[in-house]
Amino acid sequence: MDRQHLIETASGRRQPDVVFKNGKIIQVLTGEIVTGDIAICDGTIAGVGCYDCPNIVDLEGRYVSPGFINAHCHVESSMALPEIYCKEELRSGVTTVITDPHEIANVAGSAGIQFMLDRSEHLPIHYYVQVPSCVPSTPLEHAGSVLKAEDLRQFLHHPRVTGLGEMMDAKGVVQCRPDVMEKLTLFQGKILDGHLPSAPQEVLQSYCVAGIATDHESVAFEEARAKLRGGMAVLIREGSGSKNLEAIVKGVVKEGLDTARLAFCTDDKHLLDIHNEGTIRLCIQRAIRLGMNAITAYQLATINAARIYGLKRTGAIAPGYRADLVVLDSLEDVTVRDVYFGGVSVRELDRIPPMPAIPENIRHSVHLPALGEDSLVLPDQKRYRVIRMVENQIITQKVEVGKEKVQRLMQEGKLLKIAVIERHHATGYIGVGLLDNYGLKNGAIATTVAHDSHNLILVGDNDRDMLLAARELSRVQGGYTLVREGKVQATLELPIAGLMSDRGLPELTGKIQELTHIAYSMGVNAKMDPFIALSFLALPVIPEIRITDLGLVEVE
Amino acid sequence: MDRQHLIETASGRRQPDVVFKNGKIIQVLTGEIVTGDIAICDGTIAGVGCYDCPNIVDLEGRYVSPGFINAHCHVESSMALPEIYCKEELRSGVTTVITDPHEIANVAGSAGIQFMLDRSEHLPIHYYVQVPSCVPSTPLEHAGSVLKAEDLRQFLHHPRVTGLGEMMDAKGVVQCRPDVMEKLTLFQGKILDGHLPSAPQEVLQSYCVAGIATDHESVAFEEARAKLRGGMAVLIREGSGSKNLEAIVKGVVKEGLDTARLAFCTDDKHLLDIHNEGTIRLCIQRAIRLGMNAITAYQLATINAARIYGLKRTGAIAPGYRADLVVLDSLEDVTVRDVYFGGVSVRELDRIPPMPAIPENIRHSVHLPALGEDSLVLPDQKRYRVIRMVENQIITQKVEVGKEKVQRLMQEGKLLKIAVIERHHATGYIGVGLLDNYGLKNGAIATTVAHDSHNLILVGDNDRDMLLAARELSRVQGGYTLVREGKVQATLELPIAGLMSDRGLPELTGKIQELTHIAYSMGVNAKMDPFIALSFLALPVIPEIRITDLGLVEVE
Repeated sequence: MDRQHLIETASGRRQPDVVFKNGKIIQVLTGEIVTGDIAICDGTIAGVGCYDCPNIVDLEGRYVSPGFINAHCHVESSMALPEIYCKEELRSGVTTVITDPHEIANVAGSAGIQFMLDRSEHLPIHYYVQVPSCVPSTPLEHAGSVLKAEDLRQFLHHPRVTGLGEMMDAKGVVQCRPDVMEKLTLFQGKILDGHLPSAPQEVLQSYCVAGIATDHESVAFEEARAKLRGGMAVLIREGSGSKNLEAIVKGVVKEGLDTARLAFCTDDKHLLDIHNEGTIRLCIQRAIRLGMNAITAYQLATINAARIYGLKRTGAIAPGYRADLVVLDSLEDVTVRDVYFGGVSVRELDRIPPMPAIPENIRHSVHLPALGEDSLVLPDQKRYRVIRMVENQIITQKVEVGKEKVQRLMQEGKLLKIAVIERHHATGYIGVGLLDNYGLKNGAIATTVAHDSHNLILVGDNDRDMLLAARELSRVQGGYTLVREGKVQATLELPIAGLMSDRGLPELTGKIQELTHIAYSMGVNAKMDPFIALSFLALPVIPEIRITDLGLVEVE
Repeated sequence: MDRQHLIETASGRRQPDVVFKNGKIIQVLTGEIVTGDIAICDGTIAGVGCYDCPNIVDLEGRYVSPGFINAHCHVESSMALPEIYCKEELRSGVTTVITDPHEIANVAGSAGIQFMLDRSEHLPIHYYVQVPSCVPSTPLEHAGSVLKAEDLRQFLHHPRVTGLGEMMDAKGVVQCRPDVMEKLTLFQGKILDGHLPSAPQEVLQSYCVAGIATDHESVAFEEARAKLRGGMAVLIREGSGSKNLEAIVKGVVKEGLDTARLAFCTDDKHLLDIHNEGTIRLCIQRAIRLGMNAITAYQLATINAARIYGLKRTGAIAPGYRADLVVLDSLEDVTVRDVYFGGVSVRELDRIPPMPAIPENIRHSVHLPALGEDSLVLPDQKRYRVIRMVENQIITQKVEVGKEKVQRLMQEGKLLKIAVIERHHATGYIGVGLLDNYGLKNGAIATTVAHDSHNLILVGDNDRDMLLAARELSRVQGGYTLVREGKVQATLELPIAGLMSDRGLPELTGKIQELTHIAYSMGVNAKMDPFIALSFLALPVIPEIRITDLGLVEVE
C-alpha cells in the first residue's frame, strides 16, 4: 500500500485500478445500506463516492459486503492443507481466517506452527495465527511436543501472529501457575484467546481479570452473556460438531444485547461442510433467520471480528480498508456470487501459489513402539470404568461393569476394547480400556487424529484387527483406517503430521465418504459420526471419562 | 496492577481492598443494567459478582457508571492549569481526558507540550495527550514555535501520548505535502486526530485514506454520517462555543445509525461552565433527552471513547478495568453523587499533589517589540476590507469601506482599529486593520489568548489606550486587559505562556466576570462574549476574514 497513491486516487488526481459500480454497499460502520462507486488502488479501497476508470466492475444493483472473517478455526481439523482449506473458505466469502494451529503443534511443536505459517504465506487470504498456548493440553497424556513460553517467543513478532491461542488451562490461570502466567505475560498487548466451557462465576472473573479476551465455548446464551459482561468477546461457534449459534443469537435478539463484541467462528468444520454450505455466510444467514437485524449479522461477520482481533484495515468498505469484497445475490440468504481479495476476483487467484516442500519431520510423524500380542491386554481389575459414548455429542458418560460381565459383554459385541498408543516418540505408553455404545463388529478402526495430543486411537472387538490397523497407520504415516477380519478395508491417508491429507477436496471427501459408509456397514452406531466421535475420545478436558496413552481419565 | 493479586481477589482467595455493594451497574459492554458486588484490588476491578471485605461502599441502589471520558479537549482554553482543570472535570465524573496541548505548543513549542505532560503526571485522572500536529496552524502568521516531525518524535513513546493531534491542514494531506506525510507516518499505529469542517467528498475520502481516525468538527448530522461512513470516529462536540450535540444526536436517533464510533467531547469549554454543568455528564443528559437510549449515551461517554483511543483498561465495569466509577442519583438526569478514581473517592484525592516549578520560558512568554506612536498606523489604501464580527458565532464577514468613510465611521464609534502584534520573539511584525460590530468606546481591550498563534490582539478606538493595553499585558506576561481613557480598568493575568492563570477557580472566574462586566459597560456588543470573540479574530482557518501579525487574511 502506497499512501500517496491512495490519496491521489481518493482525491481524483489518479485513476483507480478498478471501480466497482452500482452496488448496494453494506456499510457495517454505520449500519446502513449505501450507494457509491468503490475505487480500488493497490488492493485497497481508496474512496467511496464518484469515481471512474476504464476497468469497471458492474455490480448490477447487487449487495456488496466486506469480506467475511472466520474468527476462530483449526485448519488441521479439516484434514486439508491450508491452501485447500482456504480455497473453500474463499469460495463462500471468507477473506480472513484467524487460525490456531493447535493440532499440528501437538504433533510437531513449534516446527508445526512454523509449517502452517510458511504454508499460508502467499495465499490469497488473510491468514492470522493465534499461537497455541496449551501443548500438551493436559499433563494426563503425552503429546508430540511440549511448548513452553520460551518456545513461543520466536512467533511473537511474526506479522501474522495476532496473539496467544485458546487458553484451556483455566485451573492454571486461576491458580496463577507460573508456566501459564509466563505465556500470558509474553503475549500481553496481543489477543489472548480463551477456552472456558461453563464455569463458576469466580473462575470466570479470574479468567477475565487475567486478560483473556475472547471465548468460543459458550453453548447457552446465559454463558455467553456472562462472558460479555466480564469483558470478553464471544465468538459464536457454528461448526460441524458444535452448533451454538441458535441458542446465543436467540438470546441476544430477545434481550436486545449489545452486539459489538460478538463475532462468528467455526472452530472445527469439515471440508465438505465448508464446501457445501460455507462457514460465515451460513452464520449470517442463520442469525438473520433467527431475527437478528441483517446488517448487524454482517457486522458480526466482518468489522466486529476485525476489531476484536485488532485488524486495522479489514472488515469494512471505506477508504484505507483492504478491497476484500463479497458480492451477494441476496442480503438475507447470503447467496455469494463473487468474492474479491484485494480487488481481484478469487476466481483469477484460483491457482495456488508454488508451495515450499513439506519438511521431513512433518511428513513422518508416526513412530510406534514394537507391538505384540500382549500390547493391548486389558489391565486386570475387579471393576471396570467404561467409556459410554453419547450419541451426537462429544461428552461421554462413565459406567461401571464388574469383571465377571466384561468378557460376556465383549463377546456379545456390547463392549469394545479401546487403546491409545503414544505415537510420536515410540515411548511404548499404551492406555487400554473399554468402550460402550460405539457398535463395531468383527474388526477395528484406528486414527492418528485424536484431540489434542493426536496419539493413535484403536477401537475393535479383537486384538488382531486392532494391531493390523495400527500397523497400517504406521505404514501410511497417519490417517484413518478400517480393518475387518484381518484385512484392511480402506485407509484415508493423512501423512502431514498424521492430521492432514496432501490431496484436494474431491479425493479427500470421497475417501471420507467411503470410510464412513464402510464403518456403518461394520456396525458403528448410526447416530454418530464414526470418525469425529472417535477422535474426541482421548481429549481429557471434556467430561465425563476419557482415555489417553496413560490410561483412563475422569474429567470433572 | 499486580495480576496475581487480581486473580487471587477475583477467585475469592484474597480479600478485596474495597467492595462496592448494592449498585445498579451500567454495563456498557452489553447494554444492560446489572447487579453485583464490584471488588477492587490495587485500583482495578478484580471481579463483579459476590464479594466481601470489611471495607464496603454501600451504593444504596444507585446507578454506577464507568468514569466518563472527555475525548477531545484543550486544557489551556480553560485558562487554568491542568490540576485546576482536571479537578473540575473529576467533580462531574470525567476520569479520563484526551487533551491536545495545541495552544501552549504554539507559544512554547515542545517545551510547552512537555510542561503539560509533566504537570499532569501525578494527577488523579487519566490524562492522555495527542501531540499537536499543526504548529503553527498556517503559514500566514508567526507563532512562538514551529514544530516539525523531528520535534515531535521525542513524544512518540511517552506512555500517555496516544497519537497525533488534530490535523488541520487538510490541503496538505490531500496534496501529500512531505512535512504533513512525515508527521502522519511518524505516528502511524497511533491515533491520528482529524479536524475537517464540512469538506467535499473527495477531500473527505483523501483525508480518511490517509489514516486520520477521528474528527470533532461536524456541525450537521449529514457531515458526521459521511465521516462515519469514511471510517472516522465522530467526537460529538459540546463546548462553551460550539454546540453540535443536538444536530448530530437527533440525526443518529432518527436514522438508527450505529453508535459504536461516536463519543463525546468539549473541544473548548470554560472552567466556570465545566464547574456549573460538567462536560460529559451534560452530553449524556442532553443525548438522552433527545431520544438516545440511555445506556447507549453512557457507552458514548465511556467504552466508545476508550475503544476509539485504544485505551484498554478504561471505560467499563468489568474485571481488569480501572476502578473509575461514577455514582449517580439519576440515570437520565446524570446527577453525579460520587466519583471514584482507582477505587478511591476523588474527595479524598482532592489535595493536589506537589507540582514541579514552572519553567522560566513558560512563565515569560510575552516579548513585544518597542512600541511607539506610529506602531499602529493603518496602512494607506483606497478601499479597506473590514472584519465584521457575527453575533454568537466565530465566523466573520468581510465588508468593504472606502478610505473617505473610514475616519468618520471610526469617530462615530462604528469602526474600531484592530492590531495583531507578534509577541513571542519581538520580531516587530504588526498587522493593523478595521473591525466592525464589536462596539467598544473610549478605550481598548487586549489579549495574548489569540488562537492559534497566540499573538497579542489589540482592539480600540484610540491608539493611546491600545498601546497602554499592550504594555499592561507585557508587564503581567499575558492575559486580558481593559483600558479606558488612559487607565487600566482591570487585568486578568495569565502568566503561564500568556494562556493560563496560576490561580484557582474562584479567583479566575471572578476576574473573568469582572472583566466581562466592564467590557459590556464600555460598549461591547452584548450579543457576544467580549473575550472569546476577540480570541478568535486571529485564527486564519475560519471564514471569512481574519487578521494576523502579517495582516489581513481572507479564508475560503
